[in-house]
Amino acid sequence: MIKVGIFGATGYTGVELVRILSRHAKASVFFAASESYAGQQLSDVMPCAFDTPLVKTEDAPMADVDVIFSCLPHGASAELCRRAYAMSKPVIDLSADFRLRDPAVYAKWYQHEHPYPGLLEQAVYGLPEVYRTHLADASLVANPGCYPTSVILGALPLLELGALAEPVIIADSKSGVSGAGRKPTLTTHFVEVNENLAPYNIGRAHRHVPEIEQGLNDIVLSAQSSVLSGLPSGLSVVFTPHLLPISRGMLSTLYFRLSPEAAGQDWRAIYARRYDGEPFVRVLPTGQIATIAHSVNTNYCAISVGPLVESPGCAPTLIVVSAIDNLIKGASGQAVQNMNLMFGFDEREGLM
Amino acid sequence: MIKVGIFGATGYTGVELVRILSRHAKASVFFAASESYAGQQLSDVMPCAFDTPLVKTEDAPMADVDVIFSCLPHGASAELCRRAYAMSKPVIDLSADFRLRDPAVYAKWYQHEHPYPGLLEQAVYGLPEVYRTHLADASLVANPGCYPTSVILGALPLLELGALAEPVIIADSKSGVSGAGRKPTLTTHFVEVNENLAPYNIGRAHRHVPEIEQGLNDIVLSAQSSVLSGLPSGLSVVFTPHLLPISRGMLSTLYFRLSPEAAGQDWRAIYARRYDGEPFVRVLPTGQIATIAHSVNTNYCAISVGPLVESPGCAPTLIVVSAIDNLIKGASGQAVQNMNLMFGFDEREGLM
Amino acid sequence: MIKVGIFGATGYTGVELVRILSRHAKASVFFAASESYAGQQLSDVMPCAFDTPLVKTEDAPMADVDVIFSCLPHGASAELCRRAYAMSKPVIDLSADFRLRDPAVYAKWYQHEHPYPGLLEQAVYGLPEVYRTHLADASLVANPGCYPTSVILGALPLLELGALAEPVIIADSKSGVSGAGRKPTLTTHFVEVNENLAPYNIGRAHRHVPEIEQGLNDIVLSAQSSVLSGLPSGLSVVFTPHLLPISRGMLSTLYFRLSPEAAGQDWRAIYARRYDGEPFVRVLPTGQIATIAHSVNTNYCAISVGPLVESPGCAPTLIVVSAIDNLIKGASGQAVQNMNLMFGFDEREGLM
Amino acid sequence: MIKVGIFGATGYTGVELVRILSRHAKASVFFAASESYAGQQLSDVMPCAFDTPLVKTEDAPMADVDVIFSCLPHGASAELCRRAYAMSKPVIDLSADFRLRDPAVYAKWYQHEHPYPGLLEQAVYGLPEVYRTHLADASLVANPGCYPTSVILGALPLLELGALAEPVIIADSKSGVSGAGRKPTLTTHFVEVNENLAPYNIGRAHRHVPEIEQGLNDIVLSAQSSVLSGLPSGLSVVFTPHLLPISRGMLSTLYFRLSPEAAGQDWRAIYARRYDGEPFVRVLPTGQIATIAHSVNTNYCAISVGPLVESPGCAPTLIVVSAIDNLIKGASGQAVQNMNLMFGFDEREGLM
Repeated sequence: MIKVGIFGATGYTGVELVRILSRHAKASVFFAASESYAGQQLSDVMPCAFDTPLVKTEDAPMADVDVIFSCLPHGASAELCRRAYAMSKPVIDLSADFRLRDPAVYAKWYQHEHPYPGLLEQAVYGLPEVYRTHLADASLVANPGCYPTSVILGALPLLELGALAEPVIIADSKSGVSGAGRKPTLTTHFVEVNENLAPYNIGRAHRHVPEIEQGLNDIVLSAQSSVLSGLPSGLSVVFTPHLLPISRGMLSTLYFRLSPEAAGQDWRAIYARRYDGEPFVRVLPTGQIATIAHSVNTNYCAISVGPLVESPGCAPTLIVVSAIDNLIKGASGQAVQNMNLMFGFDEREGLM
Repeated sequence: MIKVGIFGATGYTGVELVRILSRHAKASVFFAASESYAGQQLSDVMPCAFDTPLVKTEDAPMADVDVIFSCLPHGASAELCRRAYAMSKPVIDLSADFRLRDPAVYAKWYQHEHPYPGLLEQAVYGLPEVYRTHLADASLVANPGCYPTSVILGALPLLELGALAEPVIIADSKSGVSGAGRKPTLTTHFVEVNENLAPYNIGRAHRHVPEIEQGLNDIVLSAQSSVLSGLPSGLSVVFTPHLLPISRGMLSTLYFRLSPEAAGQDWRAIYARRYDGEPFVRVLPTGQIATIAHSVNTNYCAISVGPLVESPGCAPTLIVVSAIDNLIKGASGQAVQNMNLMFGFDEREGLM
Repeated sequence: MIKVGIFGATGYTGVELVRILSRHAKASVFFAASESYAGQQLSDVMPCAFDTPLVKTEDAPMADVDVIFSCLPHGASAELCRRAYAMSKPVIDLSADFRLRDPAVYAKWYQHEHPYPGLLEQAVYGLPEVYRTHLADASLVANPGCYPTSVILGALPLLELGALAEPVIIADSKSGVSGAGRKPTLTTHFVEVNENLAPYNIGRAHRHVPEIEQGLNDIVLSAQSSVLSGLPSGLSVVFTPHLLPISRGMLSTLYFRLSPEAAGQDWRAIYARRYDGEPFVRVLPTGQIATIAHSVNTNYCAISVGPLVESPGCAPTLIVVSAIDNLIKGASGQAVQNMNLMFGFDEREGLM
Repeated sequence: MIKVGIFGATGYTGVELVRILSRHAKASVFFAASESYAGQQLSDVMPCAFDTPLVKTEDAPMADVDVIFSCLPHGASAELCRRAYAMSKPVIDLSADFRLRDPAVYAKWYQHEHPYPGLLEQAVYGLPEVYRTHLADASLVANPGCYPTSVILGALPLLELGALAEPVIIADSKSGVSGAGRKPTLTTHFVEVNENLAPYNIGRAHRHVPEIEQGLNDIVLSAQSSVLSGLPSGLSVVFTPHLLPISRGMLSTLYFRLSPEAAGQDWRAIYARRYDGEPFVRVLPTGQIATIAHSVNTNYCAISVGPLVESPGCAPTLIVVSAIDNLIKGASGQAVQNMNLMFGFDEREGLM
């Protein structure tokens, strides 16, 4: 039984982490830290949670645990991860601080210099379907964002096989409100969200754009076979996030223009083969379309492939729909999946 | 004060029509007919409605009214419209029966032969922003579908100016549940819809696809200037409807590839000019993005234009977001707007 | 056409007031003031609103309007009302500042001394169904709270006829979130409210308790006939508000123990007679139970009466259900109804 | 590992049962039967479910399983239970068929004669907090209804100690829509439920009334100490169910009139002692009020006790709030809890 320490335990991802770990056969929460609620029980802060005492961040006994999860906001999280790294404690960072390899890109999108650029190369991007082998040896895991998880898993087989006719994809994504965190704002006020649908940061304005593009281009580059390899700036994304009036769940509707050779393939079958054996990707049978209900309260990414739409006068469009629970596969579930890989546990432990 | 007769008064569009007409200064409901609830009051059928007696369809005094609204299902509606036409009664058909000009296309999508193909050429498509002058003389109005209204209004200025780099547009649309009607089905069961988002009939499988394409191509053809005019099959659409967990409201996120000349223009300004003077299209200021809340409970179509996304290696993409209330501008409000035009009333009467 | 000035125009009640007045034939908004958003348009603050410029509170031309609505928070509102009173401007106060006649009770519940106790006797409680004649001459109207409106209207006929077997009533009330205002708090965060139901301030802890009891006891006292008249402290209430996961609407389920004589009466008929001619109370037919849908988006209070439940060994219980839209009959609609009475307009003007 | 057979597997309770049992260490689903969907996978019927083949009811290999769960509708369920009983298979019936001991009461509320009245005395009412010892030997368990579970657990300590001043309690209950089953009806249509709150079958009209009263009176009778024991008809209930716009969860607000001796006690402490050691009842600390969020997705019944409201001129009222997940503690979770007791497993197995 390994001992787990959680920082930022009273946000939605922290509480979800506690919930998942309560079912884990090989790991248990040793401490849960919170700036705002130290001294209380987690159940005082969240009605659905149970009695876990909350300690102050600075009082947390980091030396006594085997692994650390950081649910702190970006900036603060980098600081914590550096401390953990210095103590040789494995750490899984749910913030964005170690996701972008290029500190200049980080500085541009997060509006401050990266405090520990030297650590960036230590970080492994925690998407098991792409980086499983690297995760076994990782000591610092950059747990992916929710939008990047849904988009990258929805695009992976196409990119590996170099199927695109042009170096751009459209991702029309829709997210539940827990993705915006628990801090009260007008944007998350019940009356503003309810009975509404609000696109925001559309085009290339959302902070997940560079993370998505880094992830997609990594796949393209490893694949070698791509028509895109000749392009200096690689594959880019048109990204349109929308805020949905639901608590949890995320769905990305993806539009890919296929090359003539690719257009003739059975992409549902290719996706099914690619993800065969993946414990947490579920390629739906022909005729079913992924919905948020396919993934909510699970660590699954549900993917439906097709149809392919022929349009006279231009390349055909393949529609792929990818659905996850933003708090599980999009955050805390994937974090536990990464922990399982780091410690050699069954990848599914605590997550079924 | 003109007298109005409504058939199919107890569905969501019928009740909305009664509500709108109750505020109309120049028209009043003379009868409301219902197959299932004849003999009751409308308030017995819908808690929010008021006391309007419901008569049997066959007992409805059609001869005594000045105009007829049909909220009947397709098929039954064609029959009623033919009767009204034979009696020289102006009729506004909220069903799909007279929207498609080509009876072969109708037969393909609605799986039965059109019963009165000869009447199709009498019908005027009731989208005032395009067909206002024709509507003044119409005796049979085919009131547009909700998805076509949101997509066509969102595309109109671009198509009129021939701005597209290729003959396809992507419409990622999201609709509230009232669009599916009041008949209980598993698809509209609260527990199935709530906390979910479900794409359905994606690609080219929804019945509104031919209506959208007919509407778009009509605009392209009248514009003359289009790069598309050389194409035999014209502009086509990739259409992805999603069912939202809200009662009313519809939002279409539209993706247009622009030609090099078009890419340099200020499209927000062009849209604003095109719709200047239109009483029910509201082009939002730069920086605001249309949401469902911009249009719900109103007859407005709210449109935000931009940003234009540059993608290395391919044509830039303009994102336009178009939002309507599916029961008002997407159905009963637009029907009253059409009635106002037919009778020479102020187009806004009853709708502000 | 009278000129209206609104203070606190960017909260939910302020925006609703602007919306209602936009349809009023005899009144129009002359200014809308806002502390936080002065200089912007109302439509910049609320997507559903239209272009109304927002002025600073201190720049508002109070001298130029015929009537003032205060949607300010309590405390600030008292200050404004005093200024208006000093200028002899009729003012309708939507805050709680002038609802409680006894300044000691106010001080206890609002935790500060009432700043202008001398003005309290000038205020008329703005519940037209009880105080219609007084409202015609009022210069300062204390517009009732939403819970008190739903409870008092649901109890009125019983109290006037002295029907209770004991001096207590139970009000189990459920309110939509807009009643809590637009300020972001954890309590109104979408994820905390959604898929939940939360009782709060139950028993006698809600600030509306003294207002409800004052209203009920006034009716009892005027009725003279009550069995309660002998009791020094009068009728009291057990009040249990719950926060519902909806934007607007309020429903109170009321439990009354009836005296033996009262138990034999047809209370639905008595309620129907009592409210006959009332433009905004709708007593439902036998067999229908009031729901929030009966009142939402209207100024109606929908009331269902019964059944009477016989319980061996104690007095029978009459269940009355009372539903209003908390922003309309529970706030801005009732405020306009009061304005109509003050200015001698048709009481229904702007509200149908 | 025992083998479980489930009938009626494709309703909400059946799917929840499959989900719970998938985590159970000592039981696994051997077959899942469905009339409507035999031949398909459970995942074809419910997006959130996984691959469990569905067999026809008549093909289900009842002889091969160790225990049977019936999620069939009443009537059909009695038939199945009789067959199981005849085969000496333990059966847990989630329908109402064996909950009421008196066949005359059953006939009155379910409008048909009980088909197997002789079996009624074999049935044990599956509320572990009251009947734990009997459940160990049960071969036919009548799993309680959701409303009765929430009301009886909220009243139990008071009744055992004879605390009531009069033989009636008021239960104002609110339920999510899954309690109404998966069959599409106008009552469960998204648009009818959403943004609404609808009381229904109020007073004494709901079928759970006789079950609640039987449960309460059993407790009173065993307690001996009650002031109620002299009453021929015992304790009765005023019951007001409301339909909430949420998928799952149930909350009962309970009003008890206390006797003078009882009024002086610390009832929160008494509840906490009574339920000390109960694995699935959680008495909240002073100052917290139970909400649906305290119980949803768990097998817990969360109970808050108080405040006690003093009302001059009559007995004081204790408010108790009791919250459960209607599909778990109110149905399938409690059914598994009962199975655990029947087979001598840890009562919490599969339910934490």
